[in-house]
Formats: sequence, C-alpha cells, structure tokens
Amino acid sequence: MLKLYYSPGSCALASHITLQEAGAAYATERVDFKSNQQNSAEYLAINPKGRVPALVTDRGILTETPAMLAFIAQSFPQAKLAPLDDAFAFAQVQAFNSYLCSTVHVAHAHKGRGARWATDDASFADMKRKVPETVGAGFALIQRSMLKGPWVMGEQYTICDPYLFTLSGWLEGDGVDLSTLPKVADHRQRMSERPAVQKVLADETS
Amino acid sequence: MLKLYYSPGSCALASHITLQEAGAAYATERVDFKSNQQNSAEYLAINPKGRVPALVTDRGILTETPAMLAFIAQSFPQAKLAPLDDAFAFAQVQAFNSYLCSTVHVAHAHKGRGARWATDDASFADMKRKVPETVGAGFALIQRSMLKGPWVMGEQYTICDPYLFTLSGWLEGDGVDLSTLPKVADHRQRMSERPAVQKVLADETS
Repeated sequence: MLKLYYSPGSCALASHITLQEAGAAYATERVDFKSNQQNSAEYLAINPKGRVPALVTDRGILTETPAMLAFIAQSFPQAKLAPLDDAFAFAQVQAFNSYLCSTVHVAHAHKGRGARWATDDASFADMKRKVPETVGAGFALIQRSMLKGPWVMGEQYTICDPYLFTLSGWLEGDGVDLSTLPKVADHRQRMSERPAVQKVLADETS
Repeated sequence: MLKLYYSPGSCALASHITLQEAGAAYATERVDFKSNQQNSAEYLAINPKGRVPALVTDRGILTETPAMLAFIAQSFPQAKLAPLDDAFAFAQVQAFNSYLCSTVHVAHAHKGRGARWATDDASFADMKRKVPETVGAGFALIQRSMLKGPWVMGEQYTICDPYLFTLSGWLEGDGVDLSTLPKVADHRQRMSERPAVQKVLADETS
C-alpha cells in the first residue's frame, strides 16, 4: 500500500488530496517539524533531502510534488486526473505544476526559510519583506494567464488543482491581498467544497 | 515545426540537447539577455514569465524545463529518452528533474539573480557567498544518492542527462570544486563526447 509522509500546512497537502481524489488505498504518516523529525536519521533514510512529501511505493520511494502528482495520475487512470493520452495537454499540466514548485513555492519559502540561501539576519528580514511582492507576482500571472477556470486547466479537474489550492492557502500568511485575485479566490472556494479536500483537511488537522 | 527560444549558457541547453537527441525537426531563436530582450513586449507575448526556454509547438507554447523535457520524450518515443511505459520509473526521472529545477537551479540563481528575492546589496552579497555551499550540497546529494551511472538513471540515457549536464556546467562558476564530485565529472565528460551535445554546443556558441 502507498504511504505518504507529510506535515500539516506543507506542500504535501497537494499529494494527499490527489491520493484521496484518485481513490487510492494509502496510509499517511505525519512528520513532526517542531521536533525537527525531518532531519532525523530515520527520516533521512526515507528522504535524504529532509523534506516532505515522500511517497513510499512497492517499487521504492518517490519525492518532489510534480513527479508524485503525475505518478498518482498515471497509476490511477480511471480517476482522470491528468490528460494522459495527450502529450501537449499533459505538458501544460506539468508546466503549471513546475511553475508552482520552482517559482511560487520558492518565493514563499523566502519568508521563513531564508537560511537555505543566506546567512545574515538582515538578509532574512530583507527576503521576508519582499515575499508579498514575489508571491503576489506569481499569483498575478496565474490569475492573468494560467488559471482557465473553473479549474486550472478548464472544465477538467486535474492534478494542478490540489497543488494550486495548497499554495493559495498560504496567500494571507504571505501578505498577499486575496481580493486582488478573484479567480484564485473562487478556485480556493470551489476546492474547499470537494469531499476529498474536506476529508484530507480534517485528517491533517485531527 | 518546433521552435526553441534559448539563450546561450542558460538552462535552455537541456531542451536544446534533448530536441537534438530526439531527432526532432526544430528551429532555434536566440534571446539576447544583454539587451534584456527577454522582457521585451515581443518576447513576453511568447513567454509572459520573461524567461527561457520556451518551445513553440503547433498546439501552443510550452515553458518550464521539466515539462518540456517530458513532452519531447513523449513526442518522440522512438528515441527512448524516458521510460514512458513505467509510471514509477518515469516518476523517478521526473523527481530528478524537479530537484534540479526547484532546488539546484534555484540555489545557483542566488549568485546573480538575488534581486528576484531581496532588495539590498548586502543581501545579494550574502546570498552570493553561500552559493558554493548550497549548490555544492545539491550536487553532493546527486553524487551520493541520485546519479546511478554511467547515466543518471543507470544504463539508459534519459532526459535527466542533458539537464544534469547543463547545471553541472555551472559548477566552476559557482565556486564548487568538481574534484569532490567524481561521478558528476565523469558524467559531464561522457556527455561532452555525444555527437548531439557537440552539435548543440557548437550551434549555441556560433
């Protein structure tokens, strides 16, 4: 059975929702960031990067959200979570998720994880001050030219949707005014009404 | 016909090599970073992110290296550039490329692109000082637990290889001692002997 390592409030939520939407049989294990469990020897044996998510499969362990989302979509094709028979449409899905991973999530991480890229407290404060602008710019581009509506790719719900929902849940904390992003706000509301999303959020906060 | 927008020395090299390896019919167009052409109205109409690479196809424009590499592999299956019939093996390929995109390339970008995430000159200098450590750590993990050899995924050359080659070409400039990374150095040498790589490098520097 698949097993997802996650931490509440992290980007692992995207994979968690996707497993639920796929109808997969899966277990979850919480990684306690407060006690720095992600850097314990036990966890580093699972994911040497010391991050979540990680997905244990019967073939081995997978990491990296975009790869995991595509894997779940391909492993449960009946759930129709990605356009698996259309290389161009699949690439559009992947490009969206790659943008979230390498640009939007990275911008967000400069708020509290500045020590990944700098050393001085003054740099951390500087980075933190810029987060509303950088995250805001990423979401402005999503609003303007990427989010087709009602779902990211249009009429078909895909693996882009739980990933966008996960990152858009950080907007207020990042100091971005959601009222400037009506399509993103609509998307978040629409996502929050899905039974799979409600079940996963209840599980992660229980 | 496919058309790749690139800039010499950028991560677009990975897609350029992959198009060549795939035997694709493609054209290229150089984007002149020195004159800030990537932020011209003409180019922003192609890629609103103001970055390279961008790939024009008969269905529309694709961006984001991991998505483009998977698209090329899927569009030219006879070139066997990814394990297309094995969702787990494909996810391993994608996880590797996602790590390069969202961690290793991002670490590298803090050397010269600090203005993406901060405002003060002191922060840029601080970020720049840390680049040998952060890029070095990313490549140490690749050397230790990701690069199987002779190719990234083992015996089979995949879309991971031109991407690793592209980023490992930045190591000296990032202040990382390549002698600490013998498997990465071997991989770079092996890549540089491939006719497709030699042709693309000659084209980009001509």
